[in-house]
Amino acid sequence: MSGGMHRDFEAAMSFLNEGDDYLVVSHVQPDGDAISSTLAAAWLLDRLGKRVVLANQDPVPDRLRFLSGSERILSLDSLAPDLRFKRIVAVDCADFKRIGQLSERFAEGAELLNIDHHPTNDAYGVCNLIVPEAAATAQILFELIAASGHALDAAAAELLYTGLLTDTGGFRYSNTDTRVMQTAARLLEAGADGYRIADRLLETMTLPQLKLLRLGLNRMEFRFDDRVCSMLITPEDMAEIGAAPEDLEGLVNYARNVEGVEAGVLLKGLRDGSVKASLRSGGTLDVAAIASAFGGGGHIRAAGCRLEDDVQIEALLSAIGEALEPR
Amino acid sequence: MSGGMHRDFEAAMSFLNEGDDYLVVSHVQPDGDAISSTLAAAWLLDRLGKRVVLANQDPVPDRLRFLSGSERILSLDSLAPDLRFKRIVAVDCADFKRIGQLSERFAEGAELLNIDHHPTNDAYGVCNLIVPEAAATAQILFELIAASGHALDAAAAELLYTGLLTDTGGFRYSNTDTRVMQTAARLLEAGADGYRIADRLLETMTLPQLKLLRLGLNRMEFRFDDRVCSMLITPEDMAEIGAAPEDLEGLVNYARNVEGVEAGVLLKGLRDGSVKASLRSGGTLDVAAIASAFGGGGHIRAAGCRLEDDVQIEALLSAIGEALEPR
Repeated sequence: MSGGMHRDFEAAMSFLNEGDDYLVVSHVQPDGDAISSTLAAAWLLDRLGKRVVLANQDPVPDRLRFLSGSERILSLDSLAPDLRFKRIVAVDCADFKRIGQLSERFAEGAELLNIDHHPTNDAYGVCNLIVPEAAATAQILFELIAASGHALDAAAAELLYTGLLTDTGGFRYSNTDTRVMQTAARLLEAGADGYRIADRLLETMTLPQLKLLRLGLNRMEFRFDDRVCSMLITPEDMAEIGAAPEDLEGLVNYARNVEGVEAGVLLKGLRDGSVKASLRSGGTLDVAAIASAFGGGGHIRAAGCRLEDDVQIEALLSAIGEALEPR
Repeated sequence: MSGGMHRDFEAAMSFLNEGDDYLVVSHVQPDGDAISSTLAAAWLLDRLGKRVVLANQDPVPDRLRFLSGSERILSLDSLAPDLRFKRIVAVDCADFKRIGQLSERFAEGAELLNIDHHPTNDAYGVCNLIVPEAAATAQILFELIAASGHALDAAAAELLYTGLLTDTGGFRYSNTDTRVMQTAARLLEAGADGYRIADRLLETMTLPQLKLLRLGLNRMEFRFDDRVCSMLITPEDMAEIGAAPEDLEGLVNYARNVEGVEAGVLLKGLRDGSVKASLRSGGTLDVAAIASAFGGGGHIRAAGCRLEDDVQIEALLSAIGEALEPR
């Protein structure tokens, strides 16, 4: 990768070489790239002969527990109460707050290596390895491991493949570039079982996920000449199905992916009567702009916001309708 | 690629160089790889300065009509009645019969180049380029174009990417190997818009597809400790929804992909009262063996057969249940 202010692989390797004890963390509500990158960073620290603790504020999602080493990622509660960490590696955290309550366990004057691919990352580490054009943080770890001189084994390849696969939506999003495919080729060569990973993470549906999909499809509502498709899931639905919040992941895409639909909306009712709205667009509509008008945010194609009541739901849907290009 | 009896790229290039007029054909009910490979072969013949006619017994599926040049693929009816072809390129046809009625238009003594990746291909051409370990026929055409010395442009890259993408189930099936990913990287580099292709072919759902999915999920039946999941779609359903047979593509995977399910079955009722069964397994069960007991066939993970009546449907489901490993 080309040079740049916060992309000094040598400095990152020095940070990893200089200490003895490291804590590796990632963001709250960790996704595939967060967990994979946590474990890949630990894999490298293991190779460097370091003592490593892995932790996350939130538990590893069930569907990611097949990843080798995932049982090493501790919860906040299971860390000894007085334990404080001096050298931290944060992966895939766009800002310091995304680390969550785990930051309470950083020692005073703790030094942090910040490895991330989010373009909005504000370089909050003492050492920063930020590569915004990388499709996933796993891609950066692939480069870092290459820079370390340690040869990938099948376990590391599986971790990195998982991060790449999940952050590119199974090699389907627009961030799927030449480098992603080259890296995927190298990871398969190194022994990653791509089929097994894709089958588990992208194909297999749990019974709650299936029931949510069925419900979502039955609840689809089309507006504005079928250019907007929304689905409402209530807390009662979630309870009846026995679904966890993570089971809703990807559901909004079914609304967005209907031919002719320019915006898909998932409305998830919360226990306090408010609603979490997830917005997706095919790219013609900037859903981040709409979400931010309701106090939320995100990207052009994927954004979200919190709504207080039915009046606000109607206001959001109207705002989407008004934002559509006239035909 | 390694050498072998029917994988002489030079001989294939000689076949393409020696004549002036070519007909390029593929199999009946063409899929993504068939259409892409037809168009990629034509792209190469165009570069070689040949006159080329493209034809298929069946029309190009709507969802593939975005491929540049797809309008060149003629139907049997639109060929002049007396036209006969002397030099044929057949792509992705496992056997001669798969060419369908178009073979009636081959001149007596016509010479055929057979380019295919199916392991069962019986080398029916005068020249045969059969590479069974290739994930798609598009992969073989990629190699052939490389052997020709012609540099890929974005149009050719788009065609080949489409073939690779569709025959690997969006880089998810077990045939997604190092070479597939390396080739995908090269095709993106050459200008293929991978996002656009994946979005159109794998993400976008037409309204009939959506309605079929909703119906399929609502009709799911679980048997044998939820290890077998089946869905029945009647001719009346198809008519009511306004669905074409190709709209059912992929639906059976929703049955197969439910966690814990070892065999997914789609039962498609036909107008004559018989039923077309599509079987999918995760690999633990050999559905080809089961289908062949009912006069059908296929692969371990994907097979099909025709059933005459409800008695045969029950017999098939029982046969699947009996084939499950005892727990």
